[in-house]
Amino acid sequence: MMRMVDLIEKKRDGHELSTEEINFIINGYTDGTIPDYQISALTMAIFFKGMTEKERADLTMAMVKSGDQIDLSQIEGIKVDKHSTGGVGDTTTLVLGPLVAAVGVPVAKMSGRGLGHTGGTIDKLESVKGFHVEIENNEFIELVNKNKIAVIGQSGNLTPADKKLYALRDVTATVDSIPLIASSIMSKKIAAGADAIVLDVKTGAGAFMKTLEDSKELAKAMVRIGNNVGRRTMAVISDMGQPLGYAIGNALEVKEAIDTLKGEGPEDLTELCLTLGSHMVYLANKASSLKEARAMLEKAINDGSALDKLKVFLSSQGGDASIVDDPSKLPQAKFTFELEAKEDGYVAEIVADEVGTAAMILGAGRATKESVIDLAVGLVLRKKIGDHVKKGESLVTIYSNFEDVAEVKEKLYENIKISSAKVDAPILIHGEITE
Amino acid sequence: MMRMVDLIEKKRDGHELSTEEINFIINGYTDGTIPDYQISALTMAIFFKGMTEKERADLTMAMVKSGDQIDLSQIEGIKVDKHSTGGVGDTTTLVLGPLVAAVGVPVAKMSGRGLGHTGGTIDKLESVKGFHVEIENNEFIELVNKNKIAVIGQSGNLTPADKKLYALRDVTATVDSIPLIASSIMSKKIAAGADAIVLDVKTGAGAFMKTLEDSKELAKAMVRIGNNVGRRTMAVISDMGQPLGYAIGNALEVKEAIDTLKGEGPEDLTELCLTLGSHMVYLANKASSLKEARAMLEKAINDGSALDKLKVFLSSQGGDASIVDDPSKLPQAKFTFELEAKEDGYVAEIVADEVGTAAMILGAGRATKESVIDLAVGLVLRKKIGDHVKKGESLVTIYSNFEDVAEVKEKLYENIKISSAKVDAPILIHGEITE
Repeated sequence: MMRMVDLIEKKRDGHELSTEEINFIINGYTDGTIPDYQISALTMAIFFKGMTEKERADLTMAMVKSGDQIDLSQIEGIKVDKHSTGGVGDTTTLVLGPLVAAVGVPVAKMSGRGLGHTGGTIDKLESVKGFHVEIENNEFIELVNKNKIAVIGQSGNLTPADKKLYALRDVTATVDSIPLIASSIMSKKIAAGADAIVLDVKTGAGAFMKTLEDSKELAKAMVRIGNNVGRRTMAVISDMGQPLGYAIGNALEVKEAIDTLKGEGPEDLTELCLTLGSHMVYLANKASSLKEARAMLEKAINDGSALDKLKVFLSSQGGDASIVDDPSKLPQAKFTFELEAKEDGYVAEIVADEVGTAAMILGAGRATKESVIDLAVGLVLRKKIGDHVKKGESLVTIYSNFEDVAEVKEKLYENIKISSAKVDAPILIHGEITE
Repeated sequence: MMRMVDLIEKKRDGHELSTEEINFIINGYTDGTIPDYQISALTMAIFFKGMTEKERADLTMAMVKSGDQIDLSQIEGIKVDKHSTGGVGDTTTLVLGPLVAAVGVPVAKMSGRGLGHTGGTIDKLESVKGFHVEIENNEFIELVNKNKIAVIGQSGNLTPADKKLYALRDVTATVDSIPLIASSIMSKKIAAGADAIVLDVKTGAGAFMKTLEDSKELAKAMVRIGNNVGRRTMAVISDMGQPLGYAIGNALEVKEAIDTLKGEGPEDLTELCLTLGSHMVYLANKASSLKEARAMLEKAINDGSALDKLKVFLSSQGGDASIVDDPSKLPQAKFTFELEAKEDGYVAEIVADEVGTAAMILGAGRATKESVIDLAVGLVLRKKIGDHVKKGESLVTIYSNFEDVAEVKEKLYENIKISSAKVDAPILIHGEITE
């Protein structure tokens, strides 16, 4: 008979757990026959001893099988999901959905609400009056087949083992384990029905992984899990030393997404969307090379078909698509304030996570799961790293429904550094991992 | 506010926990505000990262303070406790108590029942008709002051944190951690009121620590904890590659103790008792050197005062002291069998823990806490490592209340190896650790 204590000891001593042993652990944890205190000892042993590639794939699939799996087989084509490890002002999903759908890639997105810096994709989309994600599965599938894009709220009992495990890791100092992070993310994507996966692994101060080395390791870990369990997977490592684009806040990011789909968006956001989008199109077999894929996406922006796709998407789910042509119909903050530069120089640092926290203080993000977010408020950066700024020029526009933004300004001043010496803009794409 | 998750992370990352932090952990675990799953993650982190000397002392004292502490202040003199890390056929406590009491060292022993190979000290003493340890505290103290020796059963709520922690470590593969083992043992000795402690750390196949290196490390860890918290402590590292003495089993060991107190005991048992006893006498300030202490103990054996002390001890707690002069009054097994050597040669190996298990199968030890033990049964070795044996000569006498001892014989044959080449007797005392 298998005993959990022996499996903890096996991992503690650096041996590889078999598929059967990992299934025993995850099944037992899911059904409650293996207690938290044995799992937390195991995760700490994993923190120190790691997991082999085979163990990571086995853990991922055991967590996938611990709950429901979404069946997207009635959707035509290869379903490519994109996942970001999370950053500040990350508007890529809002742009990428309509963009790749416009060239025929089916986007069947299951999405959640945000916790922390800013809202999640659903929060952002709900800035559009009438838009809702509470649709039935069959309607969702019909919409994707018809329009190539739909978003549905998270439902069903997906990866319960991962939820339980994550909650436990959070209170036992075992979050920072690359095999466990990678298996957690990949199990959710696979359970949600993805055939292929494009990962946007963020790196830098605003990211979960602060160093390029850790980000690469996490990216590799996830790509290998995906490919080992039969899902074509690749990762782009992108910079999150400063926020992506200019906007941080829900309606503000919707407006920025519209600008980007028009070809008038921030350079970094546009470039990242074209990069990630090209990989999605390529993995969906809609182009025979990345170059061809990129050309298709650029064309969809230039000929207005990407913007049209956004309108169809919004109106199909009850949203007021007229906001696309008139973004002033989006929720508007009562007050705006400018954060004026205190000196001449070059922007040297914009600490992404702290700037995200400033937006949260305004009400753009949730401090706890119960927080109600304010869709109108947030920040729009006027300068990014490497830009020259003169004393008195605006660094950031603050959109607020409160008149007193002293705390927010203080936080921003602390986290936006000006240097007298010239500073280079950071590299946006640090690498791509395909195997 | 202190948060347990931060303390786990601190230890995980190799930093030293402060006294306040260790107290927070142990108090919280004892009162149930810190759950098992956080403690097991911490103990696994300790398994990998160890504990500093200061942390070990802090942990020990936090566990001491988690429950009652025995007050032996009304007993005259320095109370020296002896602790053995556990072995097979370890009759030292039965011998040492009367032996050092005979030269004036107060022996105020709190003792427990055994689990595993053979019975505990109380089980062994209960082979003596009428003897009991259910005495009141004040009677216990009076007896020690009058006779210099008494034994009381474990009572009170001693080191509840250690009990809870040990039970958790047992099911989370974190038993094998020297800082945790050392703190656990030392907390129990200190809570039981010892002023000074002599440790008998066993090494070899029959011991918890199988290698000399690990045994030395454990001994050092315990000695340093003791000395760091103000209890003079030293350790003897003694061999448990083969069982100590000849007898394994409760009444059989009582008889062996009597023989030893008469000066007619096994050479190894006698030597170990004189070594441990000398240190006890010396730490109790009853001799100015180890040499003087040893001479006092040898005299007590030779002049019969040690044997007289045993009689007084037994009768004071209701026991029939006439067994000392007539050991045939001890419980006797119905059957005896000889394990005959299958070939000529030298005894090369007697695997102590397996031989102990053979005695347990006969009924001499408890397989579970609920097992009832048979005080009469057990084994008496006729040969030890290095002895020459002829085919057909007895290696072991088996004392049984069952006629079928085939399983026991098989186990013994498997674990007593005969070699044609001459074999040296093993070293008994591998070292002494005083700081």
